[in-house]
Amino acid sequence: MRSQPMTKITEVRVTPILISDPPLLNIQGVHQPYAPRLIIEVETAAGVLGLGETYGDTDFLNLANEFAPRLVGSSLSVNDLESTVRQCAEQIELSRIDTGVRAGGLRGARTIAKTARSVASAFEVAIYDALGQETGLPVHALLGGKVRDSVEFSAYLFYRWAEHPSTGSGSSGEGGSEIPDEGLPKDDWGAALDPEGVVAQARRMVRDYGFGSFKLKGGVFEPAQEVAAVKALAEAFPGHPVRLDPNGAWSVATSLRVAAELESIAEYLEDPTTGTEQMAEVARGTSLPLATNMCVTSFEEIPHAFATDAVQVVLSDHHYWGGLRATQELAAICRTFGVGLSMHSNTHLGVSLAAMTQVAATIPTLRYACDTHRPWQTEDVITEPHTFVDGRLPVTDAPGLGVELDHDQLHRLHQRWLDLPIRDRDDAAAIRRVHPNWTEPRW
Amino acid sequence: MRSQPMTKITEVRVTPILISDPPLLNIQGVHQPYAPRLIIEVETAAGVLGLGETYGDTDFLNLANEFAPRLVGSSLSVNDLESTVRQCAEQIELSRIDTGVRAGGLRGARTIAKTARSVASAFEVAIYDALGQETGLPVHALLGGKVRDSVEFSAYLFYRWAEHPSTGSGSSGEGGSEIPDEGLPKDDWGAALDPEGVVAQARRMVRDYGFGSFKLKGGVFEPAQEVAAVKALAEAFPGHPVRLDPNGAWSVATSLRVAAELESIAEYLEDPTTGTEQMAEVARGTSLPLATNMCVTSFEEIPHAFATDAVQVVLSDHHYWGGLRATQELAAICRTFGVGLSMHSNTHLGVSLAAMTQVAATIPTLRYACDTHRPWQTEDVITEPHTFVDGRLPVTDAPGLGVELDHDQLHRLHQRWLDLPIRDRDDAAAIRRVHPNWTEPRW
Repeated sequence: MRSQPMTKITEVRVTPILISDPPLLNIQGVHQPYAPRLIIEVETAAGVLGLGETYGDTDFLNLANEFAPRLVGSSLSVNDLESTVRQCAEQIELSRIDTGVRAGGLRGARTIAKTARSVASAFEVAIYDALGQETGLPVHALLGGKVRDSVEFSAYLFYRWAEHPSTGSGSSGEGGSEIPDEGLPKDDWGAALDPEGVVAQARRMVRDYGFGSFKLKGGVFEPAQEVAAVKALAEAFPGHPVRLDPNGAWSVATSLRVAAELESIAEYLEDPTTGTEQMAEVARGTSLPLATNMCVTSFEEIPHAFATDAVQVVLSDHHYWGGLRATQELAAICRTFGVGLSMHSNTHLGVSLAAMTQVAATIPTLRYACDTHRPWQTEDVITEPHTFVDGRLPVTDAPGLGVELDHDQLHRLHQRWLDLPIRDRDDAAAIRRVHPNWTEPRW
Repeated sequence: MRSQPMTKITEVRVTPILISDPPLLNIQGVHQPYAPRLIIEVETAAGVLGLGETYGDTDFLNLANEFAPRLVGSSLSVNDLESTVRQCAEQIELSRIDTGVRAGGLRGARTIAKTARSVASAFEVAIYDALGQETGLPVHALLGGKVRDSVEFSAYLFYRWAEHPSTGSGSSGEGGSEIPDEGLPKDDWGAALDPEGVVAQARRMVRDYGFGSFKLKGGVFEPAQEVAAVKALAEAFPGHPVRLDPNGAWSVATSLRVAAELESIAEYLEDPTTGTEQMAEVARGTSLPLATNMCVTSFEEIPHAFATDAVQVVLSDHHYWGGLRATQELAAICRTFGVGLSMHSNTHLGVSLAAMTQVAATIPTLRYACDTHRPWQTEDVITEPHTFVDGRLPVTDAPGLGVELDHDQLHRLHQRWLDLPIRDRDDAAAIRRVHPNWTEPRW
């Protein structure tokens, strides 16, 4: 029996970065040229370095910066992280955290608790990574062990422009302004603004990564166009599951009409409408399962939504649910109440993808291919970015997350954060640079 | 970074034992002189020995014996244990598992799934113990880390006889028969058959172990006597929480009458009546929280019970809920639905007590003192049996469970199992040796 003292955390670093992002369209506008993320580094007395990643917007950054020093000297324990980060969030002046509830947001209601969980999760992942390296165990073993050797992901399809619009001159503020045209990130995916464009994008996703199922981000065009795109995908890839996610863009009546059209075609319909009551109304009128990452985004929202049978699939996301353990808890709750589980994704890098893969591997009831934005990100902060093969990632048994920090890349992306004025994701500001009178569409 | 292969399990041993048990009374009769338990040993390629403990009745023993060889060669993973044990249970001839549903049982409905979970949990604990020793981490660290340094337990008070009745001669079968009088376990606690006897027992529990709260096992005498005992305890120990558990002995009307009498006195009322519908009816008529380890004993039973607000406190038990991880899942579900969590106990030894303490330490919302039968057990299979101080046990940071097997004791208690005919717990048979026409009481 080897007895060793519990290792202490000796240093914690919080690094905001900006990562290249293509002009992907959604109900809130268009992705800015650069998206803020946070990279968390946790160093231990044993000399290992644990990595975490989460949202990089101002609120998250402020809270992470405030919390990080409090972690120094503590042990590699995660069970009280959420409550201590939450206490920290409540202690710092409220003006430094945006507590406004934006029920229509892409990730559902915005509360101080969810902000705290989104920050806590990055520290939790970093601690698990460090603990894994210290013990020689992969993170999945620290979560009870993997039940599968690879995790399936879906092709995340977007309506998109070919390139970011020129930022022009004389404008100010955010939304991609003050970036010279030659500094805008570019790629060769081209535009996708109709069913043909979506299918072409899907073909490339399949060719390059072997994805076996598809998710189309909708809420961009009128529902008939998006239904046509889903049908075109189903026709082009017979037998391959297809999902549609308009981010709550539709009324109950529109949702029911779309559901009727896609009932025998789609795998599930994600957030067709907003709010638990409206989702429940749609659910009563269709046999198509309704998935959500908007009306059930926290444990507090579960009882009412499950009691009204408003959702049949919850999209887990370890970032805002509070971490890897919280994701497993969500899975247990869904299993107990007969609700399905899938996995949500926001723009992210390889640290988060490693964490998503490790936790996904431990959940027996996760039977849908997970969402991931990763193919749209051309940069990373790990030395060996993941490669999808047959739409899957292997579940590594290497210690911790099994990834290594690319210090040079981290430095470069942080320098970009220092150089550019983008601090918060603001898809609406970005699209208004092209369409000044743009408002969130509703059908 | 230290990279090491995941260790494999090289040997698994299942040892049935009989442990001394005092003549404690309950709704099903009286404890037999010896209670069956199973001790699980898991050896790994690295040479560590992990320990687990669970029920030792025939069904559990048969299933554990059938499953144990299948574990050899596998890694120290726990996430798929329940399903593999369940598959094993379904594969062996049904005649070897008692699938009869005994809804009135002390641990609720009896199903093949719950039998499988009760066996899986012992292997899970043994694997965690081994993994902890291999990594140098306490089990709590493998469960996310402790949120408290000690765990509080309650004094588990029983109506009881001073000694086991003589087995006489010429009788056969179980229930303590065929044991010579001089072989019956004895203790000096004396009888407790009225409020005074219960208070005297409580005083000794407080003197010897410092317990700060009390649970009285009821369902033995008419409700008025048991209410009087609870009131006597409240008077003798002002400010100390008291619970009463008649194991579902009462009708709804009786439960409501008792609840009204104890509303301002008891901490909670445990299983006053049987079945979710009746519990819900009682709950609607009292402000006293209702606790249960009979109507909610598995994940399958949660949705209906929570929807009807039948229980306000669930008594977790890692043995039949499926293990330490399952206990944490139960805690997450209870937290999400605003239901309290406490901890149930059956007759057990120090391996289980260590496991209970480790998992209890990881659950922030476990705010009640845990039940434990341990003070009634005079034997153990670990070299340093636990000692309660101020009603608490410290949460050890030693690797694994922090206990060591006493091989001699294990051998001795197994030899007793070989020598005596007791194979299953049967409190009714034991009491019928004294009261041949005894039937389960109902008020």
